[in-house]
Amino acid sequence: MTAERAYLDYNASAPLTEAARTAMLSALDLGNPSSVHAEGRQARSRIEEARRDVASLLGADAGNVIFTSGATEAAATLLTPHWRMGRAPLIFSRLYICAADHACIISGGRFSADSVTVLGVDRAGLLDLDGLRASLGSHVSSEGLPLVALGLANNETGVIQPMAEIAAIVKAAGGVLVWDAVQAAGRISLDMAAACGDFFILSAHKLGGPTGVGAYVAGNSLLRPVPLIPGGGQEKGFRAGTENVAGICGFGAAAREALERQATEPARLVQLRDRLEQALLQLDPPVEIHGREATRLPNTSYFTIPGLKAETAQIALDLAGFAVSSGSACSSGKVGPSHVLTAMGVSRREGAVRVSLGASTTQETVDAFVAAISTLVARHRGGAKAA
Amino acid sequence: MTAERAYLDYNASAPLTEAARTAMLSALDLGNPSSVHAEGRQARSRIEEARRDVASLLGADAGNVIFTSGATEAAATLLTPHWRMGRAPLIFSRLYICAADHACIISGGRFSADSVTVLGVDRAGLLDLDGLRASLGSHVSSEGLPLVALGLANNETGVIQPMAEIAAIVKAAGGVLVWDAVQAAGRISLDMAAACGDFFILSAHKLGGPTGVGAYVAGNSLLRPVPLIPGGGQEKGFRAGTENVAGICGFGAAAREALERQATEPARLVQLRDRLEQALLQLDPPVEIHGREATRLPNTSYFTIPGLKAETAQIALDLAGFAVSSGSACSSGKVGPSHVLTAMGVSRREGAVRVSLGASTTQETVDAFVAAISTLVARHRGGAKAA
Repeated sequence: MTAERAYLDYNASAPLTEAARTAMLSALDLGNPSSVHAEGRQARSRIEEARRDVASLLGADAGNVIFTSGATEAAATLLTPHWRMGRAPLIFSRLYICAADHACIISGGRFSADSVTVLGVDRAGLLDLDGLRASLGSHVSSEGLPLVALGLANNETGVIQPMAEIAAIVKAAGGVLVWDAVQAAGRISLDMAAACGDFFILSAHKLGGPTGVGAYVAGNSLLRPVPLIPGGGQEKGFRAGTENVAGICGFGAAAREALERQATEPARLVQLRDRLEQALLQLDPPVEIHGREATRLPNTSYFTIPGLKAETAQIALDLAGFAVSSGSACSSGKVGPSHVLTAMGVSRREGAVRVSLGASTTQETVDAFVAAISTLVARHRGGAKAA
Repeated sequence: MTAERAYLDYNASAPLTEAARTAMLSALDLGNPSSVHAEGRQARSRIEEARRDVASLLGADAGNVIFTSGATEAAATLLTPHWRMGRAPLIFSRLYICAADHACIISGGRFSADSVTVLGVDRAGLLDLDGLRASLGSHVSSEGLPLVALGLANNETGVIQPMAEIAAIVKAAGGVLVWDAVQAAGRISLDMAAACGDFFILSAHKLGGPTGVGAYVAGNSLLRPVPLIPGGGQEKGFRAGTENVAGICGFGAAAREALERQATEPARLVQLRDRLEQALLQLDPPVEIHGREATRLPNTSYFTIPGLKAETAQIALDLAGFAVSSGSACSSGKVGPSHVLTAMGVSRREGAVRVSLGASTTQETVDAFVAAISTLVARHRGGAKAA
């Protein structure tokens, strides 16, 4: 093991890319984008450039990108009964979500708990489509429209939902579909039209931008949630408050870079991830990889080491120089089983270790990680036998 | 006039200080503060350091600082009927605000429009205390408590409200007092206990930190608004979403610096502002300075140039190399009279120019600005006579 650390927790936060850093540095001295003087106009111009870059990542119109302080704020904004179609109010009477999704979706946003229907996943982590169909089938449309908000790719398993199939079900029921695309954006090719969603939630820091900035991206120019944060006229009145200028510039640069690398990077990561998993399956006993039967993100591997608690493994690996997580970052401080594994019907008391690769990951990183985990497993097995 | 520009719009956004920049740069490569590995723990540690620095600026407990994406989000969070005292729910049935305050307060946050009472100001911009007393006197306490949210210092005029007097009225009525301290923090000495408020709203970029980060600071550890942004457990569960790590670090450094300079900087700025105003009053015709009869922030001057539209002056000054504003930045893009002047009963069709000084302002800046505005006024007078 070298003194250099290996960061294998891209799903918690991807390190800032050089392009994002450069964009941020050059934006630190700009003015308030709402000011009409030269300093303000420069800031405004940079924000609009970033908006175009973020839109391009999804093949969306720049005018339909609303910047927020992150994905969680975007989710809290979109998950509301109160919307407007142009100037006309529009009510969504029920929210449909998935039990395996991120806490910001599970929270239900501005819906009351009794207006939320929670759908399940199968053992592979895929949404229960029959359940979705049945739930939407019994939706009482006289009270309002159905709003469906789902994780496009799971943050723990990396499992990707069948987008077109789900969208068809939602459309047939006259609903609106919000994709939490935080883990998917920049990691798989994601065209808004092909993904068939009405709204997409993005986070800058999962794709190489800074923390504290995100967006929601709409597929149309008319339908908008009632603002969560009212006040000034920023973001066309849909999100008040002085914009995070440097953060937004970093987000734009990271999105542009992710788009440029989309032709080659996913294939490179799949190869590394498969190399990792082949080695992990050779361990004695082999690890159990969750969601492996489904289509997954190229960069994510989520596995249980039989007999070894994920928290214990995570701490030992941290000491050995490898940053990985047990569960998602948002819940990794908590004690208790992963709600994702629970939703999948996996009851492994050991929990699971999440390894998520990215731009800095090489074959050497993967091999060194496999060596470290092999040592850990062997040591643990020796200890367990001696005890 | 030199080619160098003079930035005189600190109330819109203060340029990033060197200390804040350094803090941000050293925070750009940290991990997700919720991650338990070394990269995450480093981020967490830096956030807690910044929390202590922000708390110190107000003499508050670090545990009572909740970081947000800015003052507008903080206002939207605090201006809600739904609170908790520890685990017990607590209802505020009516919000009392002031007509001259910032759009994020005027919006009423999560209160319905019919649950908001709007108070007036006098010609000097000071809150109508009798009106506050009378309104709170007729508050129906059986329906819930009164919540009072006021700007501590006005963003356009710089007028500072009589804090202790207002707080005494609110206390006597059993209410809770939220101070929008965005323009005051770091510009005047502001001790939480002396300012007699229950909650303070702060914005990093008004005191030399970056845009996109702010906080609300509580005077106690029990009373909290129901979160605006639910999801993960960040900020003790009061504000979900991965923290803006670099932004928060920049905020902390700027707050620390502002506190260090509090012994000398306000006096320096008052002197410069008074020099500016003495010169402006020598113009022919003299300018009309708004809020001059009240105690004001040391750095702010807001004045009408008779016969010359503020927008016209602002654009001409911008071309001459001076960044100032007409009205607040948030509304300076809008057409129409300043709501602050309207509230003060000032009906000047010309509007008003806001000059707000800061760390980079010197006597030379002020003198050059006076020369520029004298030229502008003389040219305009000549033009008006010729026409």
